[in-house]
Amino acid sequence: MQLNQQTDFAFRILIYLAGHPRTARGETGSGVPPPLPKIREIAEYFDVSYNHLMKVANLLASRGYVRARRGKGGGLELAQAPEQIPLGEVAREVEGHWHLVNCFAQDTDCPISHGCQLAPVLGKALEAFWAVLDQHTLADIARLPPRDIPLTFHAVNR
Amino acid sequence: MQLNQQTDFAFRILIYLAGHPRTARGETGSGVPPPLPKIREIAEYFDVSYNHLMKVANLLASRGYVRARRGKGGGLELAQAPEQIPLGEVAREVEGHWHLVNCFAQDTDCPISHGCQLAPVLGKALEAFWAVLDQHTLADIARLPPRDIPLTFHAVNR
Repeated sequence: MQLNQQTDFAFRILIYLAGHPRTARGETGSGVPPPLPKIREIAEYFDVSYNHLMKVANLLASRGYVRARRGKGGGLELAQAPEQIPLGEVAREVEGHWHLVNCFAQDTDCPISHGCQLAPVLGKALEAFWAVLDQHTLADIARLPPRDIPLTFHAVNR
Repeated sequence: MQLNQQTDFAFRILIYLAGHPRTARGETGSGVPPPLPKIREIAEYFDVSYNHLMKVANLLASRGYVRARRGKGGGLELAQAPEQIPLGEVAREVEGHWHLVNCFAQDTDCPISHGCQLAPVLGKALEAFWAVLDQHTLADIARLPPRDIPLTFHAVNR
């Protein structure tokens, strides 16, 4: 069982954006706001397809998780605080479908679909899976800076 | 997210075997023990690849869930009562791997794997998924005959 690449990439983008400011500030050592990351930078960092990552970034933007800022120092940023992004919600939004087995699809042609209880039981298991993910937000999985460091990045989101 | 075809086929075989005797008796209407189903019969019933189903049947046999009986009326049968086959256990045994995202693999090359907490959180979610499946056995998902009907099939398993 595997989450699809789209969800994998979505988590990577979000984790990268959540953790990026600290890394950038550490490297520059100055008080100048670090430039926001570009998609190409994130794709190179994870060594994944730029085009695929771009599609997922667009999907995340359409769902209100990230947004692009134009101009000097512009790039991609979180549109919500990491603490406000539940992981289960992201997964449900981004993963294409949750047909754990073929008979989850409405047009199943499985001859036992009328009586078999596998799909409902798997459905309950899936709910439990999501419930755990929804107990966690992006803040729990990304290495975030201590809250007492006033990052420009976070100020943008308030 | 999807279970792989192997797990899907494993559940189909087990459900078919658990429900088969009643169907056969209903058709014949006699007291003669119905012949055990052959792999080919199951593959045709579900309209899936015979070779793939054969491999999964062999895997189920190697794990002690099913067994083959030779001779007249021989075929495939459950090696345990349906009530003794937890669904989570079957899934864990049969599904090839549970790498929900690439970084579940030990040889991950993700540059944030040393600090990112995504894998542990997904691991907890997976445990919750299995826990629900383990609350259910094959008997819960297959349409089984009432317990007061003394089926030859069940007698074989005692």
